[in-house]
Amino acid sequence: MAKDFSTREENYAQWYNDIVIKADLAENSAVRGCMVIKPYGYAIWEKMQATLDKMFKDTGHSNAYFPLFIPKSFFSKEAAHVEGFAKECAVVTHYRLKNSPDGKGVVVDETAKLEEELIIRPTSETIIWDTYRNWIQSYRDLPVLVNQWANVVRWEMRTRLFLRTTEFLWQEGHTAHSTKEEAIEETMKILDIYATFAEEWMAMPVIKGLKSPNERFAGAVDTYCIEALMQDGKALQAGTSHFLGQNFAKAFDVKYLTKENKLEHVWATSWGVSTRLMGALVMAHSDDNGLVLPPKLAPIQVVIVPIYRKPEQLQAISEVAEKIKKALQDKGISVKYDDRDTHKPGWKFAEYEFKGVPVRLAIGPRDLENGTVEIARRDTLEKETYQMTDIENKVEHLLDQIQDNIYQKAFSFREENTFKVDTWDEFKDRVEKGGFVLAHWDGTSETEIKIKVETKATIRAIPIDGKKEAGKCIYTGNPSSELVIFAKAY
Amino acid sequence: MAKDFSTREENYAQWYNDIVIKADLAENSAVRGCMVIKPYGYAIWEKMQATLDKMFKDTGHSNAYFPLFIPKSFFSKEAAHVEGFAKECAVVTHYRLKNSPDGKGVVVDETAKLEEELIIRPTSETIIWDTYRNWIQSYRDLPVLVNQWANVVRWEMRTRLFLRTTEFLWQEGHTAHSTKEEAIEETMKILDIYATFAEEWMAMPVIKGLKSPNERFAGAVDTYCIEALMQDGKALQAGTSHFLGQNFAKAFDVKYLTKENKLEHVWATSWGVSTRLMGALVMAHSDDNGLVLPPKLAPIQVVIVPIYRKPEQLQAISEVAEKIKKALQDKGISVKYDDRDTHKPGWKFAEYEFKGVPVRLAIGPRDLENGTVEIARRDTLEKETYQMTDIENKVEHLLDQIQDNIYQKAFSFREENTFKVDTWDEFKDRVEKGGFVLAHWDGTSETEIKIKVETKATIRAIPIDGKKEAGKCIYTGNPSSELVIFAKAY
Repeated sequence: MAKDFSTREENYAQWYNDIVIKADLAENSAVRGCMVIKPYGYAIWEKMQATLDKMFKDTGHSNAYFPLFIPKSFFSKEAAHVEGFAKECAVVTHYRLKNSPDGKGVVVDETAKLEEELIIRPTSETIIWDTYRNWIQSYRDLPVLVNQWANVVRWEMRTRLFLRTTEFLWQEGHTAHSTKEEAIEETMKILDIYATFAEEWMAMPVIKGLKSPNERFAGAVDTYCIEALMQDGKALQAGTSHFLGQNFAKAFDVKYLTKENKLEHVWATSWGVSTRLMGALVMAHSDDNGLVLPPKLAPIQVVIVPIYRKPEQLQAISEVAEKIKKALQDKGISVKYDDRDTHKPGWKFAEYEFKGVPVRLAIGPRDLENGTVEIARRDTLEKETYQMTDIENKVEHLLDQIQDNIYQKAFSFREENTFKVDTWDEFKDRVEKGGFVLAHWDGTSETEIKIKVETKATIRAIPIDGKKEAGKCIYTGNPSSELVIFAKAY
Repeated sequence: MAKDFSTREENYAQWYNDIVIKADLAENSAVRGCMVIKPYGYAIWEKMQATLDKMFKDTGHSNAYFPLFIPKSFFSKEAAHVEGFAKECAVVTHYRLKNSPDGKGVVVDETAKLEEELIIRPTSETIIWDTYRNWIQSYRDLPVLVNQWANVVRWEMRTRLFLRTTEFLWQEGHTAHSTKEEAIEETMKILDIYATFAEEWMAMPVIKGLKSPNERFAGAVDTYCIEALMQDGKALQAGTSHFLGQNFAKAFDVKYLTKENKLEHVWATSWGVSTRLMGALVMAHSDDNGLVLPPKLAPIQVVIVPIYRKPEQLQAISEVAEKIKKALQDKGISVKYDDRDTHKPGWKFAEYEFKGVPVRLAIGPRDLENGTVEIARRDTLEKETYQMTDIENKVEHLLDQIQDNIYQKAFSFREENTFKVDTWDEFKDRVEKGGFVLAHWDGTSETEIKIKVETKATIRAIPIDGKKEAGKCIYTGNPSSELVIFAKAY
């Protein structure tokens, strides 16, 4: 199996696509730019959803659901938003088909034309703030802390599975607050949740930062992000949290009565992560043998494969395997015992290795005699023979070790591929080779755009935790007060 | 609060709408026919989802995700399906907007017209079977047991919150099998899951039955359903499970190689329940005091309200209340302690009563002295004073009692409103008054349609558990072998 797919070295883009397809994560559908998320891929997404959903609820948020359709006129209400979003959208113009006059198939019924076209939501600020106008009258109605799990559509011309698709799945939080301070606090709280999720569950180190005005969400005052570095040296924006100020409250006339009986516009945030995280997860850890999954997000954490020649051997092995399975499940570990007789052990080894199952146990007749089990870990591909005694605790410990090791590996990779540069030549050279490039920038959009045109690199983040340091802009030589991160990006 | 909404007697339709709106379950959105599901309503839906999802997974199903869009031509491939579904659908014709020439807002960019229109899925058989063609080659690939949680759109002219909306949320299972028998077994297995969920979680008795050809799913060989009786005597179809035969496999050319090396078409099922269940839940149990929720689906199962005049009283009560809350939570019971000082106890009582919280505990200074707590149950509105000792077990037991009582009440209602009739006059009279009407039918669509035209009643189900009994058709007098259930329906 490992033979018929590309290595990272040969063709990184093809390697990524091969893993997504051949590990049964997703595939292209009959509809241009839209993917089918297959059961194995969807099981990973469900683990992501469950984890994030609990984090949101633990911090006081509730889920709700808003319409898929947005009236066209809603987009025009917030000037920056319409520029950023309304253009590349799926537009519903009719609500009926009829039999084709030639008797072949169906055609659009022109008499069933909508008075106002409906846009498939590319994001839901407009329809949600139109709704909040009725929910919010007084300070007693605030804060509103709502999240939605939904599908959205942005008409992309060049798509790639998970990373950029016309339809994708995501969560979008939309909160309303009585003060600016509280809204900013919410923005940062969510950014921390995203960073914690990325690092502790996805085992993917991220930089928390502010976006430059060019990269800001259309309609936001400030956009914060978590930014990760992929193995090809390109950056990937993994989540964003926006402080929207009063922009949407003003556009949709959402005011509240303060304790002092004054009418004021509400303060807002919005924030989201999407199935793009699946792409990040694949690219952050996988190797030339296939997918590598962090144990905390693996649908199957442990697979047990019996090695046998005769049916009576299988029976004896199965007894032991089922006991181990039960002991592991009692610890909350997800286990598959693959005793199918339609496939050989070698085929199964390759299959689970390719699909990134973190731990594989193999049990043969000799293991039964010796009270041992062979354990292979996916991250290092190391095999070791363990005594069967207390095996569930050993495996549990090993899963923790793997989770940690995967993170450390990704962290070291990022450290080794983060460079501070001081000259324009150095900058161009470094950006071309890939990695996070720390450089001074004069703070103007003009300069950022010129740098992008010349090098394809953009400012990925103005690090929140970065220390202030005086310097000169890499491009203009004008004064700068801090280093920002440049990179080419997905 | 109880004053400004309709009773069932006064105006049943208005009563239903008032409960949905005023209990914060859902509301109409700015988009015609589309609803906003509010946090409290969505929390109930999430409990439904979690329960059903576990039942599906426990029976070997996995979740996946397929595109929102379906190419128009796909619908024409299955003749019955296109008649049933493709007509009243949202049609995407363009993928871009542009600034309006008059500078006001945005208009559809006519140059961005799709070559083939895309339909927003009203159900996903076509796109899924187009996908399965690539997933299924041999008997080893079968069965495919996949479910999808998704939004769907059917362009409804007359909508009602939850019961009939243009966009709704649902799950749709789509399975593929190597034999007819296995597919039929799956169809029935899911019907049983739906019935168990309706009865044990929703506390709503249902009849399991087969649909007559007129009421069959467009593209199915057989449609099975669970059918419930609402308090106004109208029936509500709460879930359907379809045996699709080889119809979609033939339409999308999905064949598999048998063990005997022969190419054969695959057998299929599909099945779904939707947010319509929310409407059924409201109508099945609620009364003129508002929503009544079965404990197993209530987002808040127990609310604790402190009764006090002085802050030091509140402090003493809170200590006890927090202990009770903790003890209940440790038993997996969801509890809210409402110590807000912005609302009086009487207001809170009315609020939680209206929102259907199954159990309310009230604790005042005298209770502290006596070691007691006042417990009110929502279903019967009875209040009783309990000793505080072992309160968590008493409440747990009470929740079980309430769950059971709600079911029994609904079951008795259905029994009292199920009538066997033998003459056409009796039939017309009974159908007009409401309820399930058991009658003989000659088995022809012609007769069913005539009865519908004359009385608005349809065959809701041919009961699976009904005993065979010879008789004469209520309408034509022709021979009949079993009783079927007629009713007016939602």
